[in-house]
Amino acid sequence: MTAKVPGRLPVALDAMGGDHGPVPNVDGAVQAARAGVGVLLVGDRVKLHAELGKYPGSGSLPLEVVEAGDVIGMEEHASDVRRRTGASINVATRLVKDGRACAAVSMGHSGATMASALLTLGRVRGVERPAILTHLPAQGGFTTLLDVGANADVKASYYAQWAQLATVYLRVVEGREAPTVGLLSIGEEDHKGSALVLEAHGLLRALHGQGIHFHGNVEGRDIFRNTTDIVVTDGFTGNVVLKLAEGEAKVLFGWVREALTSTVKAKLGALLVRGALRGLAERMDPSTYGASLLIGVRGLTFIGHGSADARAVKNALLRAERAHEAELIPRLEAAMAQVSP
Amino acid sequence: MTAKVPGRLPVALDAMGGDHGPVPNVDGAVQAARAGVGVLLVGDRVKLHAELGKYPGSGSLPLEVVEAGDVIGMEEHASDVRRRTGASINVATRLVKDGRACAAVSMGHSGATMASALLTLGRVRGVERPAILTHLPAQGGFTTLLDVGANADVKASYYAQWAQLATVYLRVVEGREAPTVGLLSIGEEDHKGSALVLEAHGLLRALHGQGIHFHGNVEGRDIFRNTTDIVVTDGFTGNVVLKLAEGEAKVLFGWVREALTSTVKAKLGALLVRGALRGLAERMDPSTYGASLLIGVRGLTFIGHGSADARAVKNALLRAERAHEAELIPRLEAAMAQVSP
Repeated sequence: MTAKVPGRLPVALDAMGGDHGPVPNVDGAVQAARAGVGVLLVGDRVKLHAELGKYPGSGSLPLEVVEAGDVIGMEEHASDVRRRTGASINVATRLVKDGRACAAVSMGHSGATMASALLTLGRVRGVERPAILTHLPAQGGFTTLLDVGANADVKASYYAQWAQLATVYLRVVEGREAPTVGLLSIGEEDHKGSALVLEAHGLLRALHGQGIHFHGNVEGRDIFRNTTDIVVTDGFTGNVVLKLAEGEAKVLFGWVREALTSTVKAKLGALLVRGALRGLAERMDPSTYGASLLIGVRGLTFIGHGSADARAVKNALLRAERAHEAELIPRLEAAMAQVSP
Repeated sequence: MTAKVPGRLPVALDAMGGDHGPVPNVDGAVQAARAGVGVLLVGDRVKLHAELGKYPGSGSLPLEVVEAGDVIGMEEHASDVRRRTGASINVATRLVKDGRACAAVSMGHSGATMASALLTLGRVRGVERPAILTHLPAQGGFTTLLDVGANADVKASYYAQWAQLATVYLRVVEGREAPTVGLLSIGEEDHKGSALVLEAHGLLRALHGQGIHFHGNVEGRDIFRNTTDIVVTDGFTGNVVLKLAEGEAKVLFGWVREALTSTVKAKLGALLVRGALRGLAERMDPSTYGASLLIGVRGLTFIGHGSADARAVKNALLRAERAHEAELIPRLEAAMAQVSP
């Protein structure tokens, strides 16, 4: 159960974080380990070993428990991160800092995870503020959206840096050759938007061809249409968009379900369409993407939903390793050094 | 065809406005007139009479054509409103100003409609900036959202005024006794949000019990859950929300349609569930609500989608008359006078 993780660097998982504590974390870690990803389970040694004990054969998987006696609860203050050095999220980010893990993943307190990553790992040079980058399902695939909540108040320069970071991310991790960038606004025309967005528009326009492919303004409707690969916005708007998109999908599918059981005839038809609709529900399931990337810190950090299930944990761990294999951090550093030497 | 509109004040319709010009406008006006609403069709007399000629018996309906030789096109500048006094939208708002119409309705250039209403009708005393108020379908009914695009840059005081205006609107026009107000933010906790939203939170908190029922912060997901009757936000975020909500619904239903034709089995089932799903599509159709209300100007002004169909035009005209019957403008003035004497 404390088998040494061989070869490649493992991913550090804040195994105490999230609404459901260790249960989905350990389950997801076991699944990821079975898929060949090494995982350091950070948290209460006794609880984690007890949980691991439920999985026969887990002793031979690339899993290791790393003790952390404290955990920052979902209702506590992110600012606690600074003094509670023994908290699981701090231990996880320190493992990345010390080169013992390739990435930190947490389904726990988002603010605490951001604060811990920023304090422990620092920023990529040329990045004023890290952003949270996520994927939303869209026509033809997915749209990459950032910032979805790290920065409620922003400066125009952040948009430009985030566009650069996201471009490198999509190229390196998702293999998109020349991803396009849209600036979220309230009209397609260049002059539409808030004063801040107009300023950001100018900066993005100037960067077009210099590392990013700036499409121009996009609107709310373009996110699901996948008009651009990347949509860049402030962390306030992005967070509203993310939660609205998830909330709307949930309500609409609830209505579809209701409609399919509203009459005997519909119920009969529902039996026949069930299979076809199942794929659709999966496409909309946030756990498909596992977790969001805190981009701009000098170390891979993934932040998931507090309500994450084992599947989300597993997918987050796989994505973390993929980003490491793709050498995302050095590539981000190289790209930012080029534009802001 | 130029029958005098009897009794009640008619609604002035910018009959040239919108992507499809007079066709859906006249069609919708005829439908509204058949339902007993008087309509002044403002625009090119020849074109409008030609269009009206397609409806046998329209001569005996409460419809009247009012000449306007000019129209502000969808691609023109809103600032043109000031000098183009003969434009259809300006003629429509002047009819309201002069007491010849109870409301102005336009599916044309939104910016021009706002500018025209503001210039011609002025603001309700105590309102710094008018906002666009709209309804989004939600669990258990609809959520009233404002501002959805009139003000990309805002001050904290606007949120407080909009909360008051929307409260009166829901009470007077929709008969909700004590509508609740949520402030759109990125967390339910009082301290979550941008600096501006935190300031607005304080103002709304102070107004709680003084004319509004402030619930506190709401998140993106709460809009479709109908956590509060009213959601107040800046015109940038609100516009993104509105367009995202509509765009997402369109894409999701497209996926449902695709899924239902993906296999022979699903196609068979689709025949049985079609009827049940049709009601759902209607619930999501923006034309159900017809148009959005520009709230805060001293005269009823409704702004619709450029792509509005006849049903949307009809529903907008009915809503306009309903707001007039409910004495919305005097009620708004009385309420605002009470808080800012």
